[in-house]
Amino acid sequence: MNGQYVPHGVASVHVEDRGYQFADGVYEVIPVIAGRQVDAIGHRERLARSLRELQIDPPMTDRALGLVISEVIRRNRVRTGHVYLQITRGVAPRDHAFPVEAEPAIVVYANSKAAGGIGKQADEGVRVITAPDQRWARCDIKTVALLPNCLAKQTAREAGAHEAFMYDSDGFITEGSSTNAWIVDAEGRLVTRPVSHEILNGITRLSLMALVAEAGIEVVERPFTVEELLGAREVFLTSASALATPVIQVDDRIIGNGRPGSVTSRLVEIFRAYVASDNVDAAAGRTV
Amino acid sequence: MNGQYVPHGVASVHVEDRGYQFADGVYEVIPVIAGRQVDAIGHRERLARSLRELQIDPPMTDRALGLVISEVIRRNRVRTGHVYLQITRGVAPRDHAFPVEAEPAIVVYANSKAAGGIGKQADEGVRVITAPDQRWARCDIKTVALLPNCLAKQTAREAGAHEAFMYDSDGFITEGSSTNAWIVDAEGRLVTRPVSHEILNGITRLSLMALVAEAGIEVVERPFTVEELLGAREVFLTSASALATPVIQVDDRIIGNGRPGSVTSRLVEIFRAYVASDNVDAAAGRTV
Repeated sequence: MNGQYVPHGVASVHVEDRGYQFADGVYEVIPVIAGRQVDAIGHRERLARSLRELQIDPPMTDRALGLVISEVIRRNRVRTGHVYLQITRGVAPRDHAFPVEAEPAIVVYANSKAAGGIGKQADEGVRVITAPDQRWARCDIKTVALLPNCLAKQTAREAGAHEAFMYDSDGFITEGSSTNAWIVDAEGRLVTRPVSHEILNGITRLSLMALVAEAGIEVVERPFTVEELLGAREVFLTSASALATPVIQVDDRIIGNGRPGSVTSRLVEIFRAYVASDNVDAAAGRTV
Repeated sequence: MNGQYVPHGVASVHVEDRGYQFADGVYEVIPVIAGRQVDAIGHRERLARSLRELQIDPPMTDRALGLVISEVIRRNRVRTGHVYLQITRGVAPRDHAFPVEAEPAIVVYANSKAAGGIGKQADEGVRVITAPDQRWARCDIKTVALLPNCLAKQTAREAGAHEAFMYDSDGFITEGSSTNAWIVDAEGRLVTRPVSHEILNGITRLSLMALVAEAGIEVVERPFTVEELLGAREVFLTSASALATPVIQVDDRIIGNGRPGSVTSRLVEIFRAYVASDNVDAAAGRTV
């Protein structure tokens, strides 16, 4: 926390931290698998972009941040889990406009929690629901203004589902509440929405694109409708913790035969090989 | 803070408070003028509505909250200023869906800061700019997901203006970044957008409606465009701290003769009489 290592239980921020009062901050979640950060460079690049978009000064250099993250992982003896980091515009007397004097504030913590994308969910698949996208106009910035995402995720949870894929006012899927949404079309191509202000450019989305290019699987970036989703040959989602996870049911529609499809299962294998490989920075340089 | 009185400088929340990580919380600002809370009942009623909409359990009864607020004002010896209170879904291991075990967390603080609506701004008027409304679909809930509001306010500040009035995709004004927007039409009627999911039902907006009804001034609730705003006879804004404040310029257009108009000046006088009166709860019972 701002240059000090403190026990998690007492890690706290002032009530006038702009993250707490205004959601005026950004964050990243970096998966740790077998002791290594996956796509660390891509996550730090996107963090830098989020800060630029909100005109928040980076509290430290990228190199220093990399060292801090590694040290937090080491001190917490995390082998499989994730790092969470959040940077806000800092602490200042409450006023909507940016404070003149505040110093950006940073919190980094790590914990051990199995990544969904390498376990049971990847083998068995998950269920998703669809829900209207209620979010703001700049979902490309990874801010902590996540209340609409929480409400969508809670709606999914109450329906016994893992995730909510959100749709815009024209009936096109934007993304999941904490994941990117994909379908496999009749020709076996991967289809996902192109990046814009409406969705977050997922780091695992970018890694997947780099990895499948090598495997000769085609990716088509275009919007798809709820109807196309419901009728898709296969459906899957990506996120830092889920990697590629098959979706076997959308609302009350069973996808395919209700088991993970062959294309998605291949993606799961590609990701398993990736996280065990020498280079786990496939997204590097692709975020901007 | 959650039942304890602590010095402001050390008032802090855990990094896994859902207010800090997800903007999963609501707030209110209650003005204090001459030692009395203005529209306290209305603010607490709206708070209860916000909590209901987000399915957050109230951390205490309305009566207990009223006592806590009074005690915070007393301990801080606030005569003119405001009370800020925030309630979040509580502290829990980070997960978008609602935690099963967390207790809602409350912070109440008070400070002495002159209310804009009874001072210089009310006599001289302020400038506003217009900006696109980038917010989410439930602006009727007073959440701390205020980042888009902060960005709009900052744009105003950088343009040398006091506030940004935001417009929707059809060119209709929604509201200001922290205020409600009003115009006076050619017939001397007050015009403001009707409540919906697109705007916050301002407590001062409601008080104004109650007060002008007694004064025989007509209010018309209908949307108005940016063009209508720029050509309005008078323009003003309302908020808990601004009460009714005249707007003398919108973007590069001077409103009227560049000085507060007669109707708005009368509203300023009505509010000054109101806050000095025996009953400062005009909004009570009008929020739902």
